[in-house]
Amino acid sequence: MKIIGEKINGTRSQVKKAVAERDTAFIQTLAKNQVEAGAFWLDVNAGTAPEREPEDLVWLVNIVQEVVDVPLCLDSANPAALSEAIKHVRHTPLINSLSGEKKRMEGILPLVSSAGCSVIALALDDKGIPANVEDRLTLIRRVVGELKNKGITEDRIYVDPLVMTIASNMEAGQIAMKTMQAVRSEFPNAHITCGASNISFGLPVRTIINQAFLTLALYAGLDTPILDPMDRELRKAWLSAEVVLGRDRHCLNYTRAYRSGLLEQAAKA
Amino acid sequence: MKIIGEKINGTRSQVKKAVAERDTAFIQTLAKNQVEAGAFWLDVNAGTAPEREPEDLVWLVNIVQEVVDVPLCLDSANPAALSEAIKHVRHTPLINSLSGEKKRMEGILPLVSSAGCSVIALALDDKGIPANVEDRLTLIRRVVGELKNKGITEDRIYVDPLVMTIASNMEAGQIAMKTMQAVRSEFPNAHITCGASNISFGLPVRTIINQAFLTLALYAGLDTPILDPMDRELRKAWLSAEVVLGRDRHCLNYTRAYRSGLLEQAAKA
Repeated sequence: MKIIGEKINGTRSQVKKAVAERDTAFIQTLAKNQVEAGAFWLDVNAGTAPEREPEDLVWLVNIVQEVVDVPLCLDSANPAALSEAIKHVRHTPLINSLSGEKKRMEGILPLVSSAGCSVIALALDDKGIPANVEDRLTLIRRVVGELKNKGITEDRIYVDPLVMTIASNMEAGQIAMKTMQAVRSEFPNAHITCGASNISFGLPVRTIINQAFLTLALYAGLDTPILDPMDRELRKAWLSAEVVLGRDRHCLNYTRAYRSGLLEQAAKA
Repeated sequence: MKIIGEKINGTRSQVKKAVAERDTAFIQTLAKNQVEAGAFWLDVNAGTAPEREPEDLVWLVNIVQEVVDVPLCLDSANPAALSEAIKHVRHTPLINSLSGEKKRMEGILPLVSSAGCSVIALALDDKGIPANVEDRLTLIRRVVGELKNKGITEDRIYVDPLVMTIASNMEAGQIAMKTMQAVRSEFPNAHITCGASNISFGLPVRTIINQAFLTLALYAGLDTPILDPMDRELRKAWLSAEVVLGRDRHCLNYTRAYRSGLLEQAAKA
């Protein structure tokens, strides 16, 4: 499992402010803390208006790379911002994201292909997110097929099944798990990513639901979750899931976290 | 999911003392608290020497039934104790347990059959617990077959795959899950039971591992876990797993637990 750290995201008000004010220290602290907490990738999202976004995203890329040496997940739907940012990254980036939407296919796929990037492919097209597993898989097959046609190998494709909210559809968890299992079996070299928190929207004590979902999704094939690596409760969930699933050799990560005091229960939810 | 409350067990020192001293109040409090916390069955285990056990188990059955009206899980390997206790139960009991061991088959199977009880069948025989999933299933098939031959229908059979300890075998979690999934698919009307804590033996902050295991096992087919229903951390795990798996209609159990203050994080592990 490799975590994509989600915190440098301009849709969060503190980050938005830091981008607007060029608060380098704030962003660099977020970057360092997430990498220290185990992030393998860092998502960077400027979240600004299209005309400002290329400059803002490049600024984020540069200041983040001053303090950490991890690959970046360039988070934008704006081809102009992405193509500028790609010029400044030190490691091959992950593009977040492409989908079956015509506009994204036309704007982003050529970039991914020519720059040799990896890419997150959402189970979404111009008609929205398919409601059932089979339709979602049909869409994923089409998008993965188009990526492969452009020379993007399976191991560079990160499929996001797009997790819906349980509070509005009781089947949301099962749909996500079944989609992940099918993707894992059909595209064994592809990665599976998703956010861990959408599932619990509208429910109380969301972290408990998020933990259960993360645990089950790791079983179903999720290998690159997008999450806050500093979230102590989520960390307990993923570390223990890896132990129970037999993926933490000699329980080394788990016992190391224990010795670092990371497994104590928080005082409050 | 229906919980078998595990706390009235003579191998626990406080219960052993209460049985020896005929401390009715102590046992009855354990019974009431577990049922209040959601136990569907109550396990009763006297844990005393064979010659004392019939009398002690009957005493437990009687005083428990004075305060709660739930079916009991009669926990003993002693046919004499079981046959006495069966005479005193108000509801059809669950016998804990039978296995492929010759002695248990001969001593306990006739009792289960003639009294029309339900029974827990362990994946164990005179050679021990099979190390891999296939051998475990072969044994389970044989035991379930013998039970069916004696007229015990599948819905009265509770298969316990016997969860091993991760610390001694990294595959223990996967073996348990795979066994459960196979049993669920091969014997769709049978129940699946197991203790939730053996998995974490020897590891720190065991409750975190137990929660992950319980979450994954509920997915794999576990429907009658043996556990401490008063354990707040485990409760969070099973309530949230049921939500994510789409089994908690309108999230009613989850939100009810929230309103009762049961989902707050404990101050310490």
